[in-house]
Amino acid sequence: MTTINRMSEVAEVSPQEWHIWRTFHLMRRQLDRALETQLQGDSGISAPDYEVLLALFEAPEKQLRSRALGDLIGWEKSRISHQVSRMAARGLVERRECADDLRGTWVRLTADGHRAILGAMRKHATKIRQIFLDVLTDAEKDVLLSASARVLDAIEPRGCASDNNSN
Amino acid sequence: MTTINRMSEVAEVSPQEWHIWRTFHLMRRQLDRALETQLQGDSGISAPDYEVLLALFEAPEKQLRSRALGDLIGWEKSRISHQVSRMAARGLVERRECADDLRGTWVRLTADGHRAILGAMRKHATKIRQIFLDVLTDAEKDVLLSASARVLDAIEPRGCASDNNSN
Repeated sequence: MTTINRMSEVAEVSPQEWHIWRTFHLMRRQLDRALETQLQGDSGISAPDYEVLLALFEAPEKQLRSRALGDLIGWEKSRISHQVSRMAARGLVERRECADDLRGTWVRLTADGHRAILGAMRKHATKIRQIFLDVLTDAEKDVLLSASARVLDAIEPRGCASDNNSN
Repeated sequence: MTTINRMSEVAEVSPQEWHIWRTFHLMRRQLDRALETQLQGDSGISAPDYEVLLALFEAPEKQLRSRALGDLIGWEKSRISHQVSRMAARGLVERRECADDLRGTWVRLTADGHRAILGAMRKHATKIRQIFLDVLTDAEKDVLLSASARVLDAIEPRGCASDNNSN
């Protein structure tokens, strides 16, 4: 048992596949770290703040149901709820309940939240360009797009994401 | 100002590049979420536990300096320190200080930590295969590897990563 020294032996994944996975994984971690540092340093907003602000900014009428917001960002319901509470306390978003509508709370971007995301975006996009978009060729970006879409499909086949629960 | 409705206008990124970035970003989030759910459900270990256990498992003599561990995982020093303290309390890792060595604490995998990572890995690898490795063609995996390596280089050029600070 203790003679195993390579994860590829344990995992029944070829050493080359394991190398690809680990390199990809490290890249994702370092990308997150670099972007978080930039956001916090330039604009004083955290990565979770940014995720929520951007999802609402891009939504029709700058609002989403809480559940849809979670699906877009990839967070559990409780994490969305806590994050929205903190951001509402700072005036960046607001919750709206509809008494005759059982499909859940709406979360809407406020004017302050709108200013915050617009103010943060230019420098953030410059960083995304510098460490990601400008580093890759067009062909690589195409591969990345189709590969990402297929991985998303494998994680959660399209059309089933919101059918399990009405809230 | 309020007539801006697409982030690509704010960010001076083409709509297509923005779409690629956002799809890639969502894929990363959903991948993390799916793998965390699997790890916690099958093995009762969190994603941060797993990151640390795996980095130590793959290191020479199953140990790393605290700083090197942080660089490998992409975490700040304080986050590594808190995570290691929690895992040491559970007997998964141990800290070793060397009085005559100023280059920082060592963190080593314990026998319990070794059993934990071996026990968790098979089911985790099956999930990685199902939602990532088996979804991609060999050509796509090659592109992903080279693209990841270049993004990592853009974030932190090789050879400079550990030169700024001796601790």
